[in-house]
Formats: sequence, C-alpha cells, structure tokens
Amino acid sequence: MSADLVSLVTSLAQRARAASLALATAPTAAKNDALTKLAALLDSSHAALLEANTRDLASAEAAALTPASRERLTLTPAKLAHLAQSVREVVALPDPVGETLADWTRPNGLRLRQVRVPIGVIAIIYEARPNVTVDCAILCLKSGNATILRGGKECFHTNTALAALIARALAEAGLPANAVQLVPTTDRAALTHLLKLDTLIHCVIPRGGESLIRFVVQNSTIPVIKHYTGVCFVYVDQNADPAMAESILINAKVQRPGVCNAAEQLLVHAAIAATLLPRLAAALLASGVQLRCDPAAAAILARTGLAHTSAQPADYTTEFLALTLAVRVVASLDEAIATINRDGSAHTDAIVTRDPAAAARFQAAVDSAVVLWNASTRFNDGFEFGFGAEIGISTDRLHARGPMGLRELCSYKYLVEGTGQVRG
Amino acid sequence: MSADLVSLVTSLAQRARAASLALATAPTAAKNDALTKLAALLDSSHAALLEANTRDLASAEAAALTPASRERLTLTPAKLAHLAQSVREVVALPDPVGETLADWTRPNGLRLRQVRVPIGVIAIIYEARPNVTVDCAILCLKSGNATILRGGKECFHTNTALAALIARALAEAGLPANAVQLVPTTDRAALTHLLKLDTLIHCVIPRGGESLIRFVVQNSTIPVIKHYTGVCFVYVDQNADPAMAESILINAKVQRPGVCNAAEQLLVHAAIAATLLPRLAAALLASGVQLRCDPAAAAILARTGLAHTSAQPADYTTEFLALTLAVRVVASLDEAIATINRDGSAHTDAIVTRDPAAAARFQAAVDSAVVLWNASTRFNDGFEFGFGAEIGISTDRLHARGPMGLRELCSYKYLVEGTGQVRG
Repeated sequence: MSADLVSLVTSLAQRARAASLALATAPTAAKNDALTKLAALLDSSHAALLEANTRDLASAEAAALTPASRERLTLTPAKLAHLAQSVREVVALPDPVGETLADWTRPNGLRLRQVRVPIGVIAIIYEARPNVTVDCAILCLKSGNATILRGGKECFHTNTALAALIARALAEAGLPANAVQLVPTTDRAALTHLLKLDTLIHCVIPRGGESLIRFVVQNSTIPVIKHYTGVCFVYVDQNADPAMAESILINAKVQRPGVCNAAEQLLVHAAIAATLLPRLAAALLASGVQLRCDPAAAAILARTGLAHTSAQPADYTTEFLALTLAVRVVASLDEAIATINRDGSAHTDAIVTRDPAAAARFQAAVDSAVVLWNASTRFNDGFEFGFGAEIGISTDRLHARGPMGLRELCSYKYLVEGTGQVRG
Repeated sequence: MSADLVSLVTSLAQRARAASLALATAPTAAKNDALTKLAALLDSSHAALLEANTRDLASAEAAALTPASRERLTLTPAKLAHLAQSVREVVALPDPVGETLADWTRPNGLRLRQVRVPIGVIAIIYEARPNVTVDCAILCLKSGNATILRGGKECFHTNTALAALIARALAEAGLPANAVQLVPTTDRAALTHLLKLDTLIHCVIPRGGESLIRFVVQNSTIPVIKHYTGVCFVYVDQNADPAMAESILINAKVQRPGVCNAAEQLLVHAAIAATLLPRLAAALLASGVQLRCDPAAAAILARTGLAHTSAQPADYTTEFLALTLAVRVVASLDEAIATINRDGSAHTDAIVTRDPAAAARFQAAVDSAVVLWNASTRFNDGFEFGFGAEIGISTDRLHARGPMGLRELCSYKYLVEGTGQVRG
C-alpha cells in the first residue's frame, strides 16, 4: 500500500480518537442539538442528496448490483423523510452515558463506582446502503462514540454528501466535526490498514452479509462485534396448543422471510406430529412456503397429500432467507434441544408448549442469544425489546449478545474515591 | 500443518464445546464438588506433581529461561499448598451463573428476562506458569465455561500432571472430564489452528507478556480479551495534601514495582512543584527509585541536590516494571488530563487533590479503566475490588474492562415468555 494511503487512514483515525475524547464528556443537550440540526439538514437537502445518489446509480459499480441492492442504494424523498424522522427519534431516547451501574464501599473505606462511558472510536464497515450511514452515525453519536464510516463503493457520492451534512450539524452544535468521518477512498487496501489501527480504534461493527463480516474478522486486530446469520428454530412440543403453534410458526416464517430472526427450521415432537404437522403444513403451503422434510415428516405429509420435498443434509443448517422451511420430527424435548444446539446458529429459537417444565428446560438448555416460549422468533429485535433503537443483533457472546441498542454501544469505567488509602 | 495436528486440535475443541453445553446447566453443588475434590487431589499428589516439575526443570527448554521465569516454573510443597487453598477459596465464592440481570414486560405482554450464562468455551494461552493452569481452570469451571489450556512448552509435564488431576476431579463429581483440557502438544502450528476455530471456541484470554498477547491478537479470529501493559500515572494536583501525595506515590511505585498497576509516571502541578517535588523525590530516592525528569522537574531537583537523570522521550510512555519513575511538571489540570490520555495506556490513573471539582473533572475526562482520587493505583485489582478472584485486568473496552472476576467470565441470554404473541 502506498505511504500516502497509510498516512491518510492513520490521520483520519487519529482525528477520530481526539474527537472521541471530547465527545465522551459532551453534554446530552449538545448531542441532541447536533441530531436535531442533522434532521433539519436532511429535510432541507433533498436536491443535493438526490443528485449525489443519481451519480452513484449511474456509475459502473452500481450497474453490477442486484435489483434488490440497487433498490437499497436508491434514495427517494420519502426515504429521506423517513431518515430524518429516525434521527428525531434518537433525540428522544435517553442518553446511556454516565449512568452508575454499581456503587459500593470496601471495608477499607474506598468507594467504587462503575459508570457507563462510551466505547471510544467505532468503525462501521457496510455495503451500499445510505441509510446505514445515518443510522449508525446517530446511534454512535448519541452514545458518545466517534465513528469512522466505510460504506460500499457503489454508494460513495451519496455517503460523501450525507457525511458532509453530519459534519455540519456537529460543528453547528459545537461538537467536533471529526466525530463522524467517512473514509475518503474506496480502496480495499485502506480498509485493510484501518482494521489494524487497534491503538486508535476500539471496536469494528461490520453491517452486511456473511462474506463482509468474515473479511473483517480475518483482517482485523481490533475487536469485532458480529451479526452473523440466524438459523432460527421453532420447536412444537407435544403439549403445544395447535392454534398457537400455527400462528407463531406462520408469523416466524412468513411475516418477513428475508431477515435474521425469521424461522428457517421446524421441529415437531413425534407424539403430536401425525395430527398437528398436516395442519401446520397446510397453513404454511397456503402462505407460499416450500417444505423440505425429513423422512418422518415426509411420510406424514405424503399420507395427507400435502406438497413437500425431501430435505438434503445441508438444509438442516441453512438460513434460507426465503419462503422455504426445513421440517423434522424429533422423539423428545432433549432431542429438540440437542438438534438446535448442533444445527442452529445460537441466534433465536422458540418452543411452543403448554408445559412450563418443558419450557424452562428448553430455555435453560438451548444455548442461544434469545430463547422464546410461546412467542414468535421475530421478537428478537431492539425495538421489540423496547431499546428504542438497534444497531444490529449480535451473534457474539462477549460484550453484547442479541439486540444491540445504545447501552450496548457503551463500555464502563471505575471511579475509585479514597482518603489516602494505600495497599498493604 | 499436518492433517493429524488439525484433527487433534479440532476434535479437542469439539469435545470442549460438547462439555460446555453440559457445564452450562450444571448445578453449583456439582461444580463446587469438583473444586473440593481437586483441592484434595492437589494436597495428596505432591510427589507426582513435583516429579513432573523436576522433569520440566531439567529440560533443554527450561535451561533457556531467565532466573525469574525459572522461579515461576518451579513448584514447591508450599506453592502446592497455596494452590489448593486458592481452589478452596473459589468454592466459597457465589456462582455467577443464572442471576437475573433485568426483567421487564412489554406493552404486548411479552416478559423478557436477561440472565447471566457462561460464555461457553474459553481458551487460555499462557507462559510457563503452572499456577495459571489451576487458577484459570477453576475460575472458568466455577463460571460454567469449558476451558482449553495451552501453557508454555517449558511447563508441559507439570501442566499434563495438573490437567490429569483436574479431569479426575471433574469425572468424580459427575461433570464432563473434557470441561478442562490441555492442548496435548506444544507445536506452535497447533496453537495457530486453535485460534481459527471460531465456531467452537468463544473467547481467548492470553495471559503473559505483550509479545504473547500480540501474537494471539494477530492470529485469532476468535474474540480476544487482552491484558496489556499499564503505563499508570499519579497526578499530584496543586491542592494535594503533601503527606497523602507522598504516601500514595510511594505505595503506587514501590510496593510491587513489577506489576501492571504500579505507577510509572508522575505529573506534578507547577504551582506546587517547587515545594512538593523535593519532598516526593527524597522519599522516592530513599526507597531506591531512580527519577527520569523533564527539564522543569530536573531544575527543581538540581536546586535541592537530589539525584535524577534527564528523561528521554520514550520514558514518558514506558512501563518500566522496575524502580524507575518518569517525572514531569504540568501547568494545569487540563494539561495533566491531556498528557495522560496521550501518553498513558488507559489502565489505571490517580489524582491526589483536596479539590472535589478537580477530582471530578479528572475522573470524568481521563479515559482509563480505573481512575482513582486520593488512593493508590495498586487498588486496580479483582481482590481489592471485592470480586473474590481475578483472571486478569482487562485493557479492552468491550465486554470486560479493568478487573475480571467470575461475572466477567460470563455472557447473558434473553428468555422471552409469551402467550402466543406474533409480530404485526
């Protein structure tokens, strides 16, 4: 890599670090002022933003995008209005910084307080989605973190225009404009260098598909918070209420099949499969879901003339993100638990049962971030949890697990107050 | 790397993962039973352990160790008795697993509980210190995690003997013997492969010097919790009590100079330096501390005939781990804060002052894990914090920051309880 590129990226990270120290003690009012000004700027800058977006859409890079990706890249007045509204919603959220998490006094009289503080500098690595630029910047800002944004190359002009508005809002609110910076090049080498700056950047959050996350994990010496796939299970126990099982399964599979908390796998207890599986399958088929069945499930559906195919082994660990569901019959609750812990992704799994003991055992033994009893997997979501916002759903076990809101964008520190104590 | 080595390490990690699922729901009594049995086995196995240790000490690898490292490798009956005692102390600590961290109900009736659970599988990478084998295994066990141990090659026979006792204690308590496993080879390639097994191992904790930690960070795709150096500051404010400043500084610098929470850097406010610095310097010199001074401090000490040398720029960011202290005069509280945030390691920093406003500003603005007011830096320690144990002092900002006890060896999960709710 060229020395110029090294210098460009390093100095950007140094500016972010300096900004983070100022931002860490910035009053809530100043952060909210910057957010309010940003919302107004978004509302008043449609022409410039749409012009930049048009340049991106006309580029050779954008021509290679799938229709779905191109749709996500495209800004419209309605999308911009929605973005401004989401900024205003973050103004209304409580500031997570400064809260005392613990407060105790030792026998020697030392008083210890654990208080929530920003993490510091957070790098967001993402694809050609301009809304991510704004969503991540505002959540990091509200939680007192400086942000380095590195979006997809197809979105470069749009992101540059958005970043300019953010910098202007920060400066007008008296906060360091460097608190949010866009990496001013789409050179992959710049990203690789950025991911080694572990003395300046404290956390990397990749937002995108598995290959993007994997690239970041393999190249970063900075801690990464990952949002990997959800191979989510619904287990229908022998004591399940049939109507509730149908309702939860349909919601988990069909309501929004392309997201990480959608169900991909169905397990049905053998004692109830012959009677309940045809009802579930009929409802799923009516919703357009294709069923990939193990031999036991296939035999039951064959007897009732319901459409299905035979599952291949890979289907049992697949995140389809489509109207496809793998279906298996299990002999016991223990087999369901072992199957989920072996084939799932420890993301979101649900049991439907009337039996509290079975539910308790399932919730204790299933090793997943969110384990639901008699509710849809779709509830693993920061808004549904009441966090008011979400930067993603962490599949890590360190720091944040499950929905990540403003509090999960913070660290803590200890304040120790003495009267001259020394250690003996 | 040979296919045999890949298979050896991968199957070891698979066994650890399976053991971790059993351990996650193991009752406290079973874990304490295993610990109690281990303490008894340590007491009754002196002959076998000392024999294995003698083999290690006689090896070519051990011959290359420094005297200090060789001392740490050497077991004695007294050290073994101390080790057994430390196991018994962990029995007495509360089990961190299962505690409810939050419990709330959403408007739609969904009840959400956040409960503390083990992380899963933790790999400990360390040097030739047999006490680390036991210390880490028992803390991970008590917190419900399966452990993979990879110690220094100079300690291989001792670690093998210790691991055999741990496995026996686990099995006799009805817990999976694979809950604690030693990597059965000291081949560096095996370690490199281990550090890529991010679907089986959830956390790596390197315990040792900076080069070991750096190697792990650069080679691991598993999240790493780091315990880097402490370049700790004592700042003596203009309103400091002179006797307290002397007492805290001597304790922070001299009580145990070779550890990460010892002071390495002294800052003195210019308004008090001419009168106070000679007193502080005299006390430090009487304790055998060498002083490396900036021009302002050097001028004051030269006037009073106190021994010192001129500091080189590198001294201001150095962790000496010895009876050496860098000394600077600062013009203001703000300069002290900026100096610490620029030259320190965000580990442990202290202010000595009678002024509560200065202390509050220092504690808010110094971006370190532990910020003390009128107390020695040596208090950044899990035992001194009242955690009852410590696996290290984290210099990370994600997950654990500062002293890491049993709770910091845990993750959490969400248990969601509904009555058939689906998402609209």
